[in-house]
Amino acid sequence: MRTLQEKASEWSGVSQNDAFAIDDTNLYEKLGHQTFINLSTNFYNRVYDDEEEWFRSIFANSKKEDAIQNQYEFFIQRMGGPPLFSQRRGHPALIGRHRPFPVTHQAAERWLHHMQEALDTTKDIDSDSKTKMMNFFRHTAFFLLCGSEKDRQCVCMDMYVRDGVEIAAFLPHTTDGDSEACSTCVEDVNV
Amino acid sequence: MRTLQEKASEWSGVSQNDAFAIDDTNLYEKLGHQTFINLSTNFYNRVYDDEEEWFRSIFANSKKEDAIQNQYEFFIQRMGGPPLFSQRRGHPALIGRHRPFPVTHQAAERWLHHMQEALDTTKDIDSDSKTKMMNFFRHTAFFLLCGSEKDRQCVCMDMYVRDGVEIAAFLPHTTDGDSEACSTCVEDVNV
Repeated sequence: MRTLQEKASEWSGVSQNDAFAIDDTNLYEKLGHQTFINLSTNFYNRVYDDEEEWFRSIFANSKKEDAIQNQYEFFIQRMGGPPLFSQRRGHPALIGRHRPFPVTHQAAERWLHHMQEALDTTKDIDSDSKTKMMNFFRHTAFFLLCGSEKDRQCVCMDMYVRDGVEIAAFLPHTTDGDSEACSTCVEDVNV
Repeated sequence: MRTLQEKASEWSGVSQNDAFAIDDTNLYEKLGHQTFINLSTNFYNRVYDDEEEWFRSIFANSKKEDAIQNQYEFFIQRMGGPPLFSQRRGHPALIGRHRPFPVTHQAAERWLHHMQEALDTTKDIDSDSKTKMMNFFRHTAFFLLCGSEKDRQCVCMDMYVRDGVEIAAFLPHTTDGDSEACSTCVEDVNV
């Protein structure tokens, strides 16, 4: 069974090394605190004004200013700055915290589309940092897609095709007793 | 609705500030790389030799050396060291990666019992670092307990009592269409 990060690399086309090249440099020190606030503000301005209603509606019940703060605090923490997110909200727990949202392939691509535009139009983000961040975001979006499939009963993953797109299935394998994982999954818990 | 981190604080008895006091000092630099390897080795030696079969069996299908490496790489990354875990395995995604395991109140307490003993018997861990780490572990164990309840259809949380122990219920609220969250949840996605 392939692991979650292997699937994320395969689907996103971004290797694990490229995805986490954000750790080769301290991007927080390089870009500065205000740049992250500007980036997230730019990004969510685009999201909340999206002409695609299906995408805009995913965020409709969250306050824009909260979405902005949650995002830049996570980015700052993850890219070498102070742990603002954890001090206020605890572990990032990316898969867990995305449970309320319909993380689909289409939504992942739309998110990435807006982020690319936000990166391109936020001042003081050099080309190398932009490439690193975009690789990180693309890999992470597909990591969440792999990890957020609904109706799973265990973590077994297999591929199937829906609407012409290869997506993950968390097969409802039989589990024994209290465990969420079937014997196959338990053999490889390194998801 | 209380947030996940508020519930984790309430259940664990550890405030958010105390839980993340691990970030006040660079514990990796203070304790050193080998101490984290020693701690995780000590911890999993206890777990794999646990006289309680129900607890030991949770780990029975994982290789002990993998469990040790996964844990110390995460601890090192989280406590100020190099991002070894992400380089090899991607995001920690603590809730997502604990999905295969039956995270119960009883299992959380047993995990913490072994970790306390491991901290007490691993050399070079001073008392202040031990307190900080134990607060972090206790808060995190209950954060996972809140976040790992099974059979949820949305992220609504409510309390109920099972076997005399107050635990979280993820109520199967009605969701609309593609969303995993009912309208109540969507109003507060800050889980």
